[in-house]
Amino acid sequence: MSFDPQSLRYNEDGLIPAIAQDRASGEVLMMAWMNAESVARSLETGRVTYWSRSRQAFWVKGESSGHSQILVDFRYDCDRDCVLVVVDQTGPACHTNRRSCFYTAVRAGEVVELMAPEQS
Amino acid sequence: MSFDPQSLRYNEDGLIPAIAQDRASGEVLMMAWMNAESVARSLETGRVTYWSRSRQAFWVKGESSGHSQILVDFRYDCDRDCVLVVVDQTGPACHTNRRSCFYTAVRAGEVVELMAPEQS
Repeated sequence: MSFDPQSLRYNEDGLIPAIAQDRASGEVLMMAWMNAESVARSLETGRVTYWSRSRQAFWVKGESSGHSQILVDFRYDCDRDCVLVVVDQTGPACHTNRRSCFYTAVRAGEVVELMAPEQS
Repeated sequence: MSFDPQSLRYNEDGLIPAIAQDRASGEVLMMAWMNAESVARSLETGRVTYWSRSRQAFWVKGESSGHSQILVDFRYDCDRDCVLVVVDQTGPACHTNRRSCFYTAVRAGEVVELMAPEQS
């Protein structure tokens, strides 16, 4: 069955959450949002393309930073309302220069930082 | 620094997306939603507790199915608007009886099913 980006379920703003996972490490790198057109562009170009809610514009990950995400596998969930992109990540995924955006943990009620920014 | 669940950023419905990742396999299992109280309950009880948008009720994962998620690590992202829970998953995470909700991929424009329901 061929895939139609419109067949996914988008929220009232036309957006769907997209989780990026690193192919090599399995690490969850970030979560951002896509609209139907950014789903289509990601699949067509092989470069993960989000929709920036703050800029209201397409966001080709790494276009300005060089920290691009090459699409390895595009998946969606049972409810069709969440996307998982498996990626080859170049450099850190997070704008803080950390490998993953999920660098903060709560352990025994305390906030713990799990990783430091990478040196560039 | 001690953690306050209210310090996370919730959407206009008071919800934050929560990604569950299996500790052992690294697999992304599902994405569901939490409110501040379900964040607090997950941390207090060590059992991952979502907020069911359809039922408008707390949803202790596995409470009815037995497919519970024991909280191993609670993390949040740089923007404080997404949660990652690392879990020990008992049985399949998906209501379709599959290990993960992300069992559908798009490859070369075609929809591909990656895993079958587990036998119970």
